[in-house]
Amino acid sequence: MSDYDVLCIGNAIVDIIAQCDDAFLTQNGIIKGAMNLIDMDRAGLLYSRMGPATEASGGSAGNTAAGVASFGGRAAFFGKVAKDQLGQIYAHDIRAQGVAFDTTPLPGEPPTARSMIFVTPDGERSMNTYLGACVELGPEDVEADKAAGAKVTYFEGYLWDPPRAKEAIRLTARHAHEAGREVSMTLSDSFCVDRYREEFLDLMRSGTVDIVFANDHELKSLYQTSSFEAGLDAIRKDCRIAAVTRSEQGSVILRGEETVWVDAMPIRELVDTTGAGDLYAAGFLYGYTKGLDLKLCGDLGSLAAALVIQQIGPRPRQNLLQEAQAAGLL
Amino acid sequence: MSDYDVLCIGNAIVDIIAQCDDAFLTQNGIIKGAMNLIDMDRAGLLYSRMGPATEASGGSAGNTAAGVASFGGRAAFFGKVAKDQLGQIYAHDIRAQGVAFDTTPLPGEPPTARSMIFVTPDGERSMNTYLGACVELGPEDVEADKAAGAKVTYFEGYLWDPPRAKEAIRLTARHAHEAGREVSMTLSDSFCVDRYREEFLDLMRSGTVDIVFANDHELKSLYQTSSFEAGLDAIRKDCRIAAVTRSEQGSVILRGEETVWVDAMPIRELVDTTGAGDLYAAGFLYGYTKGLDLKLCGDLGSLAAALVIQQIGPRPRQNLLQEAQAAGLL
Repeated sequence: MSDYDVLCIGNAIVDIIAQCDDAFLTQNGIIKGAMNLIDMDRAGLLYSRMGPATEASGGSAGNTAAGVASFGGRAAFFGKVAKDQLGQIYAHDIRAQGVAFDTTPLPGEPPTARSMIFVTPDGERSMNTYLGACVELGPEDVEADKAAGAKVTYFEGYLWDPPRAKEAIRLTARHAHEAGREVSMTLSDSFCVDRYREEFLDLMRSGTVDIVFANDHELKSLYQTSSFEAGLDAIRKDCRIAAVTRSEQGSVILRGEETVWVDAMPIRELVDTTGAGDLYAAGFLYGYTKGLDLKLCGDLGSLAAALVIQQIGPRPRQNLLQEAQAAGLL
Repeated sequence: MSDYDVLCIGNAIVDIIAQCDDAFLTQNGIIKGAMNLIDMDRAGLLYSRMGPATEASGGSAGNTAAGVASFGGRAAFFGKVAKDQLGQIYAHDIRAQGVAFDTTPLPGEPPTARSMIFVTPDGERSMNTYLGACVELGPEDVEADKAAGAKVTYFEGYLWDPPRAKEAIRLTARHAHEAGREVSMTLSDSFCVDRYREEFLDLMRSGTVDIVFANDHELKSLYQTSSFEAGLDAIRKDCRIAAVTRSEQGSVILRGEETVWVDAMPIRELVDTTGAGDLYAAGFLYGYTKGLDLKLCGDLGSLAAALVIQQIGPRPRQNLLQEAQAAGLL
C-alpha cells in the first residue's frame, strides 16, 4: 500500500481577499482573472489601496492537497513558508486539514508569500502574488519517501516562476516514476503557460508528466490556437490523461482515444471563483487514486469546484466526503 | 463641527475563525458564547486542536469603529497592536475602512492579540482571546485632540482586563467631558461584568459613562438579577441612555422615563454571531451622532447586526450606508 494518495507541490501562499469593482483593476493595471506576479514594493502599494480584507491559507496545489484530505484521501504537501506569523498560519491550516506538511520553514527573510486577491462583483478573482519565501523552494526540500510513496504527485505550473522549484519537481518526478507512480500537473494560468510554453510541452512529451489539468484558456495558450477542439486534439497526443475545465460548461477528460464529458454542478450563487480549478483537481485526483472511473472522477471535481465558488476563500469549509455522499456520488 | 462622530477604544485583536461542534467546546473547557481569556500556552494548545481557519481583523470596539465608518460616519480608534504581520493586517483593515488609527504599535513582544473563535453549528461563537500587545495600552496612547473632538467616545468593558487601559479610558473620558462630549461603553460579556461589576457600576453612577450598551445576559449579571425587567428598572436610573439587546427579540432603549422597543431585522440564515453587539452599537451610534431619533438609531443597529450574523467574520462586507438606504432607513 502506498503511504499517500496525492503529494502536492506548490507555492505556499496566504491569500488576502477583498472585494473591488472592475474600475479598480483597470486603474491599478491588474489583469483580470489572472495571477499577476508582483514584487515587494508593488505589494505594499496595492495593499495600501486595498479595502478591508480577510486572510485564508491558499496556494493552488495547497488548496488541492486540502481538498484531497477533505474527501478523506491521504495527502502530503511540499511548499516553502518563512518562520513568521503568516507561515505559522499556513502550516496550521494545511496540517489541521490532515495534510502531511514537513517542509522546513525559511528562517529570516523573505517573508511568507501572500497573494492579494481582488474579487469583482461577477465573482471573478484577480490575484497579485508576492512570492516571498517560495523562491527558496529547491531540491533539498524533496522528501524522497513521500515522492516515492504517493500514488500521484501533483504540482502547479506556477512553480516555474521561482528559480529552483523546477529542480525540486524534476527530482520528485524521478523518485515517483522510479517507484512506478504517476506525475500530474496543472498549467495554472494562461499567462503562466505563455511564460513557460516550451518547458511545459517538454514535460508532457518527455513523459515527466502523465496527467495534465488545464482550463480552456490555458489549453488554447499552450497550443497557441483559438480552437478548443484543436487544443483537445493536440493535448490528447501529448499526455496520457488530460482533464480540461470550462467553467459552467463542465469539463472534458481525454485518455488516448477515450473522451468523457462531465457537466458542471449547478450552484445557487457565484461568490468567488478562487480555488475552482484547484478543487476540481482535488476531486478528480481523489477519485483517480481510489480507482474510480473517469466520469466519476470528473463529477467529484465538479462537486468540489461548485462548493468552493459559492464561498469566499480558496478551500471549502464543508467536509467534501460528506458532500459527495450526500450528492450520491460516493 | 467636531472632528469625529465616534472615537472607539478597545483591544486590537485579529480573529482566527474556525467551525467546531459542541463537543469540542466541552472537551476543551471553553465556555460557550463567552469571551474566554487565555495565556500564550493555552493559545498554542487550542490552536493545535483547531481546524483550518480564516483570519479577519476584529476586536469589539474596532468592529464598532469599522461599522460607523461603513455607515459613512467619521470614526477613530485607539488600540494596541505589535509591529508584526498580524499588527500590519489589523492596521490595514481598520484604516482601509476609513477609520483614523494612529496608536503607536508596540515594538517587539508580546505579539498582536488574537482571538480563536469557534463557531458551532447553531451560529454561536465562543472566543478564546490572547491579549498580547493589548496589555500595553495605557494613558500615553490617548490622543487628546481625538478624545476632545469626537461627539461620542465609546469603549469596551473588556478593557478592564489589560492592566492599564482603564487609565487611558478615564483620561479620555475627562478630555471628552471637558469638551462637552458624551462617553459610552459596552458591558462586553456577562463574565466580564462579573469580573468588574462594581467598577462598571461606578463608571455609570459617577457619570464617567453616559450611554451604556448591554445584552440581556450582561444586564442581568450587572444587577445580579434573573429578571430582565428588574434589570431595566435599575439601569434606567444608573445612566442617561441604555440600549439593551436581546438577540432575535430585538432591543430596548431607555432614556429617563422614555422606553423605545426595537425589533430585530429578519435574516435568511444565521451563520456566525460574531460582531452582532458591536455592529448594533455601530448603527446606534452612527444614528445618534447624526441626531436621529432613538427608534431609528435602534433600527440602524438592528440592520447592521442582522447583516454581520449572516456571514463569517466580525465586520460586514456590505456598505452599511447603502444597505440602510436600500432598507428605507436613511
